[in-house]
Amino acid sequence: MPLDDTRYLKGAPVAARIIAEVRAAADKAVEEGFPPRLVSITVGDVAAVDVYVRNQRAKAGLAGIDFEERRFPAETTAAELEAAIHGMNADPRVTGIIIQRPVPAHIPVKAIQAAVHPLKDVEGMHPASIGNIVYNEIELAPCTAAASVELLKATGLDLKGLEVVVVGHSEIVGKPIAFLLMSEGATVTVCHHMTRSVAAHTRRADALFVAVGKPRLIKGDMVKPGAAVIDIGINAETAPDGSTRIVGDVDTDSVKDVASWITPVPGGVGPVTVAILLRNTMVALNRQRALYQSTYATEGKMAAE
Amino acid sequence: MPLDDTRYLKGAPVAARIIAEVRAAADKAVEEGFPPRLVSITVGDVAAVDVYVRNQRAKAGLAGIDFEERRFPAETTAAELEAAIHGMNADPRVTGIIIQRPVPAHIPVKAIQAAVHPLKDVEGMHPASIGNIVYNEIELAPCTAAASVELLKATGLDLKGLEVVVVGHSEIVGKPIAFLLMSEGATVTVCHHMTRSVAAHTRRADALFVAVGKPRLIKGDMVKPGAAVIDIGINAETAPDGSTRIVGDVDTDSVKDVASWITPVPGGVGPVTVAILLRNTMVALNRQRALYQSTYATEGKMAAE
Repeated sequence: MPLDDTRYLKGAPVAARIIAEVRAAADKAVEEGFPPRLVSITVGDVAAVDVYVRNQRAKAGLAGIDFEERRFPAETTAAELEAAIHGMNADPRVTGIIIQRPVPAHIPVKAIQAAVHPLKDVEGMHPASIGNIVYNEIELAPCTAAASVELLKATGLDLKGLEVVVVGHSEIVGKPIAFLLMSEGATVTVCHHMTRSVAAHTRRADALFVAVGKPRLIKGDMVKPGAAVIDIGINAETAPDGSTRIVGDVDTDSVKDVASWITPVPGGVGPVTVAILLRNTMVALNRQRALYQSTYATEGKMAAE
Repeated sequence: MPLDDTRYLKGAPVAARIIAEVRAAADKAVEEGFPPRLVSITVGDVAAVDVYVRNQRAKAGLAGIDFEERRFPAETTAAELEAAIHGMNADPRVTGIIIQRPVPAHIPVKAIQAAVHPLKDVEGMHPASIGNIVYNEIELAPCTAAASVELLKATGLDLKGLEVVVVGHSEIVGKPIAFLLMSEGATVTVCHHMTRSVAAHTRRADALFVAVGKPRLIKGDMVKPGAAVIDIGINAETAPDGSTRIVGDVDTDSVKDVASWITPVPGGVGPVTVAILLRNTMVALNRQRALYQSTYATEGKMAAE
């Protein structure tokens, strides 16, 4: 179908709205003495991530957030990287830290991620951040998961009681989507490679999220008529003529005539993910401000001294 | 049905097995200079929790774990309680801390819970503990959730691909059960009061967990033949003659002829929950030992000085 078909749930307008909201909040924060700054860490050959980082920088600029790149050589040890992160944790100019993946094989990415202070964890990937989502504090969530949920919200569907099926149970996409939607009142099922019949579940879903990394896994006959389909997969597919294109986990050609909404790939979840990263930076800033202000609050304390 | 019916999935033998395992580990830890100790905190009128605390003390004794009660008067402030917990966090004799509920209304129980250091959080309720479950580190989980999963495992059913439905989406029971079972490979759906048709889900469940606090909510016609039903509800029911009895969230009379396994209430999840608390205490102890040993490890460090 042509890309201007209204069934396409495109990321750009959702991202633009979020970035405008972030811009207003960031400008106000700058005025009040709390300029937001996002630090991007890359290790080794950055060619693979360069297009992502440049895009983050451009969007941060639109949102009024300083963007600083720190590049570490490929031979940087995990201990050196951790020490650098501790330095950024202690630096009042750094609001949030994002670790660009992939990192070289000798860097244990999860341990490095956990070195980021929870209040500076704008990727929403610290165990404490994940735990807070379970406790219904859903303001700061992993970017891709939160972006996927924003796209569902853009349909206007009432999330309370909505039958949602998530295909894929990764820690930073599938599971957080499930918790976010449970907090919003949806009835959620999480399927994965061990599920007996994925189709039996997807066919009853009012909203279907797919994040497994298998090109065109979900066909039209696996989707309930009228459903909203959020495609989180990004797969490179090589055509017989040798050309490469990016396709999602959903077979758009067959699903488009069944679903009421479907996110395009590319141009769906991706743009919103960057906007959520910037929104998370403002959430982190507000938490740091609250901590600063409670630390220096003198009301009541002076009398006690 | 008589309580010796084999369809009853009773807690006592599962609890006894876990406590025996804890006993062996605790005895070894004592020999090695790391005696485990569990501290129970009660605030105000303890009559309501007294029977639970006495039971915990008795089971801790069987498991070879010291059990210490600290009772605070009803007028204790949240700040005083938090300071006391910080003291216990810093006390090498304290392995784990359990806060008995209910606490007086002026005590914000979630904030107090968060004051317990994650390494001493034997209840598994710190956000970081919950987040770790999402990351498939399922060794230490909220006690009731972990106990419910232990009972399902006692059936011998293969959890991989098992169709599981959880009714109830509380942060410390329903959701953790869901993550624990996702980590084990089950396909999990979480239902709650906003779910359109709970029965449509429960009827397709190979394993059904119910934790909503509504007496006899689940009837026989809502259960798939041959299912395992884990009843986590504890409700006081008053008979027409004025007598009181404890019933679960499952209508045992009608479900018993449909299900292949059903946990009795009382005598099902309850006894296992206490055993898990003691097992969690050993998990906490092992983590504290690992931290102690890595702190004092001299290998490599001496050379660097």
